[in-house]
Formats: sequence, structure tokens, C-alpha cells
Amino acid sequence: MNDFAITVADIEAAASRLKGHIRRTPLLTSPFLDEIAGRKVFVKPECLQHTGSFKARGAWSAVSALAPDLRRKGVIAFSSGNHAQGVAWAAKMHGAPAVIIMPSDAPALKIANTRAYGAEVVLYDRLTEDRDQIGTEMAEARGLTLVKPFDEPMVIAGQGTTGLEIAEQAAEAGIAKADVLVCCGGGGLTSGIALALADKAPGLRARPVEPEGFDDVTRSLAAGSIQRNESMGGSICDAIVTPQPGNLTFPIMSALCGPGLTVTDDEALSGVAEAFLRLKIVAEPGGAVALAAALTRKHEIEGDSVVAVVSGGNVDPAMFAKALQTIGK
Amino acid sequence: MNDFAITVADIEAAASRLKGHIRRTPLLTSPFLDEIAGRKVFVKPECLQHTGSFKARGAWSAVSALAPDLRRKGVIAFSSGNHAQGVAWAAKMHGAPAVIIMPSDAPALKIANTRAYGAEVVLYDRLTEDRDQIGTEMAEARGLTLVKPFDEPMVIAGQGTTGLEIAEQAAEAGIAKADVLVCCGGGGLTSGIALALADKAPGLRARPVEPEGFDDVTRSLAAGSIQRNESMGGSICDAIVTPQPGNLTFPIMSALCGPGLTVTDDEALSGVAEAFLRLKIVAEPGGAVALAAALTRKHEIEGDSVVAVVSGGNVDPAMFAKALQTIGK
Repeated sequence: MNDFAITVADIEAAASRLKGHIRRTPLLTSPFLDEIAGRKVFVKPECLQHTGSFKARGAWSAVSALAPDLRRKGVIAFSSGNHAQGVAWAAKMHGAPAVIIMPSDAPALKIANTRAYGAEVVLYDRLTEDRDQIGTEMAEARGLTLVKPFDEPMVIAGQGTTGLEIAEQAAEAGIAKADVLVCCGGGGLTSGIALALADKAPGLRARPVEPEGFDDVTRSLAAGSIQRNESMGGSICDAIVTPQPGNLTFPIMSALCGPGLTVTDDEALSGVAEAFLRLKIVAEPGGAVALAAALTRKHEIEGDSVVAVVSGGNVDPAMFAKALQTIGK
Repeated sequence: MNDFAITVADIEAAASRLKGHIRRTPLLTSPFLDEIAGRKVFVKPECLQHTGSFKARGAWSAVSALAPDLRRKGVIAFSSGNHAQGVAWAAKMHGAPAVIIMPSDAPALKIANTRAYGAEVVLYDRLTEDRDQIGTEMAEARGLTLVKPFDEPMVIAGQGTTGLEIAEQAAEAGIAKADVLVCCGGGGLTSGIALALADKAPGLRARPVEPEGFDDVTRSLAAGSIQRNESMGGSICDAIVTPQPGNLTFPIMSALCGPGLTVTDDEALSGVAEAFLRLKIVAEPGGAVALAAALTRKHEIEGDSVVAVVSGGNVDPAMFAKALQTIGK
């Protein structure tokens, strides 16, 4: 046994609550990606999930686990956009009110979608304001339950259902041993997948992938203690920029994950372009870093196969057009 | 019984040959699409199929049905690109040589991919040359088996497996009655789906969707006899521009399909944009006409639900960027 915030039983319980509400995303392949990567590439396209990212899993898990009287009062979340949409969607589907606190520089599409899911959106300045403080104060004032984006057991359990599916799909595809590359912000998805794989597919090893300059998890894993990012702005990978790994997610990642990987913004954009060209899926830059690493970090990855999670696809058209311009260059 | 080229038993036999080789694509939804369409919209994303279009189904069906000695000699196909890639891929997976005859104005991506799948590509002029004649002559000269793009029983049977999946997935989603809109060129996919639905989901009705000015199937269904397009060039929906419905596909569509629908090039581009924004999938213009019709032809469609097949996603980056520019306008 361990002292982690959750166990694989929590992930399986979340999977039961999610059943029929969350899409079981497929495992996609392309001979062209295999050729680029020098090994078999399997992509888990969570951009095809409801709300366009894996965040719908954790949000549904958290909202569905609430006691009915708490759920009726409503939930609150703070997020750069994907968790926002996930919580807004899950709340709406449960008939619960939702307040979402979003950075004012989040992609317009994510803000608009969060509002369209019926949530009340409160904007804040990512560089000067503390979203945790804003969220906590509003939660207390209105009796809302705070659904944290990653450092929350029921959220980690929900994200971990991605890992249960990868374990099953890898077995079906005959993959006994592989690195599973996961786009990583605060570590909710990475730690959830790591827990599920450790139990269900011990030959598969989760590894976080981050943008260069925002590699808090990679450095934390290397140091053996939580490290912070120096800056919070300036990355095109807005979905996965967080100050530091979570207090709940870090011990899990530290015990179960392989070393982190980092990619440049240009490599993330090329990952978006390859996902477009080869898989016909729409990835956002932060959702493409794991695929980018699979394609460009040949010598840092082990095994004949690699699994890359494309974690989200909520990208503004202008940014996507920029990624398309990398094709053929 | 009927006098059609194939029966649902042929489609089921094709499904058995395709099992494990073809992706069972999901049925995607978005509350945003429902709002635009004024009814529940279910999208079958065949752009996520191997080779980026449903054509992989018919190609696998045809190549797998060949006698081994014929298969060893190789296959030949003529196609604007998606059938080309499907046949090249299916041949390669079966270890058979493939010659593909493509129009010189086909998207560069489709030509490059067909070559990358190992096929020998022969280009011809779509406006002045007869691809049927070129194909037949090469087939005879080299002992290759011609795999026609649509007017071929085993190809129709393979495309019809899409209809078997729609029937099952509609039942799971509780859809008892709906129009099933299908992007239509020569009618292979439309007739295959129509046959499958007539047997497995009689409340679902297949309807072809075409680009304005290239509506040979729509006019043929209305007239009760095969009508030709006046022109073959000038559409952005290259994937579904054919001279006329097939001799095998037309009787099936005439007996089983509802009336055809047409959309403009601008509407097709908006369909591409909505697929990007709402479903995170990459559709080509010709592959988006059914979704475009679902979103814009509210009063020509019957029922509370509509199913739209997104038939392919092999689109050049420049054309996709053009579709993105329609967003917010």
C-alpha cells in the first residue's frame, strides 16, 4: 500500500460514475508518425472528449461524487480554460450552478465556451492576482464547492480513467512495454494515468511532458522535491502552465513516473500540425506536447512503442493557422 | 428480395473481413452543433478512419475479397485521392502491388500520401482525359485487378459497414428515426449505408449531400434516371465530384434514399470550421457537406435527430486555413 491521495479503486469507482457520460476515446495510429518517431506511435486523442479535453473526466468525477445538497448549491473552479469547460459542462449536466474563474488572457474560444455551457465566468489577471484566493473567497461567500483543477482526489481519480482505457487498449494492441507520454500541467492527468498503469499495465510507464521554460514537474521529479516555474506567462501552451506540481500529484508522480521531457513552442506547433496531417484531429499546443516529444525525442524514449496523450483541442483559429504554417517548412 | 448489386449479407461479410483492420469510428456530439441545427446532431467521423477517409473500408473489402493469385499480381485504381489512399493502404497491408491513377489537380497531400503508402502514381488531366480508359488499359497490360471507386460490389459492401455501425450506434443513442446525411460522389458510401440502414435500422433514412453545381445524384434521384454533371472542375469539394451516379449505386439509392441536398462551397467551408471548433476533427470540404447540410438545411430535414457522416479529412493546409478564416464572420 501507499500513502497517495487516491488508489486505483478510486479510479475504478470514478470510471463507474463516468460510464455512459464520458467518451471512451480510441487509440489512433499512422504509419507516417511511426516513420517520424522511429517506433510505433499510439495516440490517445482526448481532444475528442466532451468539451474538447480530458478535463471533462475529472470534472464529472468530482461533481458526481458530491453530496446532493452540496451539488445543489453549486461548484466553483479556476482554470485557464479546459478545466473551466469541463466543470461548467459537468455542472450543467448535473443541474448544478457553476462559477468559473478564468485568466483574462485565456483563449477567447475557451472563455466563450465556458459561458455557453451556462457558467458564470469571472476573469482575473494571471500575472498579478492569486486565483486560489479569489476562488476560495467566492466559494465561502456563496456556499459553492471548490473543484480544484488537479490537486483534488476525485479529479485525479477521474483523469485516471484515461489510464484505465490506455491499459486496456494497449493490451488489445499487443503493447506490453512502452513509455506513456502525458501533457502535464499540475499533474492531475499524469498522476492519475500513472496510478492506473502501475496497477493495470506495469510495463507501461507514465512520463510528463512540458513546454521549455515551464518545466516545473520535470525539475521537481529530478530534484525529488517540488520546484516552481519562474514565470507564468509567455507560453503558447496555456493549458499546461501551472506554478508548480500539486501536493497530492507530486508524490504519485515521484513514485511512479519516468523522467519528464520538455519541448519547445515550435515543436509543440509541429505536433499540432502532425496531428492535423496524420490523424485528422485538432490539438491545442499544450495538448500536443506529448505527441511532439514522441516525434522528436527519439533517444530519450524507451521501447519499440510509445503512447502519447493528446490532452485537448481547444485552440483559437489564429493559433491553429500558425501551426499549419509550419507544414512543409 | 431485390435486384441490387449487393445485399446486406455482403455488407456483413465485408464487416467480418474488415474486423481488426478498420477503425470503428465513434458517433460524436456537441451541444453547440445541436443549437445551430435546431435538433440533435450526431456525427460519424470517418476522417478518423485509416488513411483519413471511409475509402479504406471499401478498399480493404475489395482487396481482401480477391483470390490470392490475383492479389499477388496487384491492383489498380483511379481516384481524386481518398480512394487512391485507401487502395494503396489496403494493397500494402495485403502485400500486393498497387498502381493509382490520379487527376493532376488532386490535393498535393493526397498525391504525396498515396505515394508514401508505396503505390505507383500515374497523373492524368481531369478535364481532357478519360480515367476509365487509362485505368482499363493499364489493368489489361499488367494483369492488375481494377478496383473501381464506387461502382463495384465489394467496394459498396465495404462502405456499407459504416451503415452497420451507424445502425448500432443510433440504437445505443436511442435514435429511432432520423435522416442520415452522407457526402456523396458516385454513391458507393451512400448506397452502402442505405442498404445497411434499410435492413438494420429502418427508421433511419440515408440522404445524399452534394456541392451545388455538382448535384448529379440529387438530380438523378429527382428525375428517376441517371443525370450527368455539366462540369467536372471548379469545386473545392474534390473528393465527391464525379461525372454521374454509378450503374450499381443508382438503383440502390433510388429505391432506398430520401431526396438529395446540396450546399454551397462557402457552406462546406463553414462545415469544416464547425467540425474544427466543436468536434476537434479535421474534415475536408467534400467531407463536410453532410455536416454543413445538417447545420443549414433545418427545414429540409425531418425528425428530432440528424446523423451526418464526415467522410474524409485529407485537406491541404492552405484550404483548411481558408476554412478557419470563416470563423467569427
